[in-house]
Amino acid sequence: MPLIQVDLDAELFQRLHSEMSRELHQAQIVALGIPADDLFQVFTPHGADEIKFDPTYGGVDRRSLIVIRITMGPQTVAAKAELYRQIVQGFERLGIRPEDIQIAVVHNGEGDWYAGKL
Amino acid sequence: MPLIQVDLDAELFQRLHSEMSRELHQAQIVALGIPADDLFQVFTPHGADEIKFDPTYGGVDRRSLIVIRITMGPQTVAAKAELYRQIVQGFERLGIRPEDIQIAVVHNGEGDWYAGKL
Amino acid sequence: MPLIQVDLDAELFQRLHSEMSRELHQAQIVALGIPADDLFQVFTPHGADEIKFDPTYGGVDRRSLIVIRITMGPQTVAAKAELYRQIVQGFERLGIRPEDIQIAVVHNGEGDWYAGKL
Repeated sequence: MPLIQVDLDAELFQRLHSEMSRELHQAQIVALGIPADDLFQVFTPHGADEIKFDPTYGGVDRRSLIVIRITMGPQTVAAKAELYRQIVQGFERLGIRPEDIQIAVVHNGEGDWYAGKL
Repeated sequence: MPLIQVDLDAELFQRLHSEMSRELHQAQIVALGIPADDLFQVFTPHGADEIKFDPTYGGVDRRSLIVIRITMGPQTVAAKAELYRQIVQGFERLGIRPEDIQIAVVHNGEGDWYAGKL
Repeated sequence: MPLIQVDLDAELFQRLHSEMSRELHQAQIVALGIPADDLFQVFTPHGADEIKFDPTYGGVDRRSLIVIRITMGPQTVAAKAELYRQIVQGFERLGIRPEDIQIAVVHNGEGDWYAGKL
């Protein structure tokens, strides 16, 4: 039951939200073995000046920033590395530069979810 | 000091934000024994296409999605189950279907808060 | 690689976002020793009624609310207390009242980040 929240430029959202959603979802299926219907995503489009970043942190050429926050149960470091790889490659297929993506994972536990029934 | 963040449809926000706020607050008072004035809520209304979900994950008939994220200190699994029950029942009184709610809890600790004074 | 997310009144965002960004960034440099180019911030402006709070919780005179969420790796309680102090003092220089700020920290770990390269 990962919850994926994406903060991104409003123009990019308008242009590619369906494709980004599909790539994010496919990435978690491939990397984490999540069931194909376990889809919970929130996109928040932002105007100019709302997303702030440094263009060169980490030695990359960053031109804009998409922030992807993933809340999920425990996963291994290897599974998370594969998840990042799948997301970055999926977005690259859409023309989104790997340098322009940030991903932050926060873990929670089994008793930390409600999803439609008690 | 739970912080409750709600991502929801803009029309639903306009129609019921005060009532939803009250039910969320009452739920944490009843389930967690939070002081009555410990109220920190952020609602983010969303346009069409910004909240993405699968209509049947978990075997429920999901027609829309309200995402409730709760950041709070340690709580037992039983207290969290009661919190979900109170929220779902409270929202049901407003005409919001239990199937259309997702709740994700993330825990933090005592040194992880500032609330108006050092 | 702290990720700082700020939920605030839309008018305040318009008026002071650059200054708030600078003060938040300077605070983490001073309190946590973060590299000067490690800057990842998302501001979400909110309309009236979207941010809900109690005006007196914790014995302070709260008139509005800025919610600052910080996702970061492990830090000591002392470092976090200093971070809050630096943020509050920095915002106070901009005319923002300490009483009107809430900060919530959530910790994650080393394998929990992607920032532009695999």
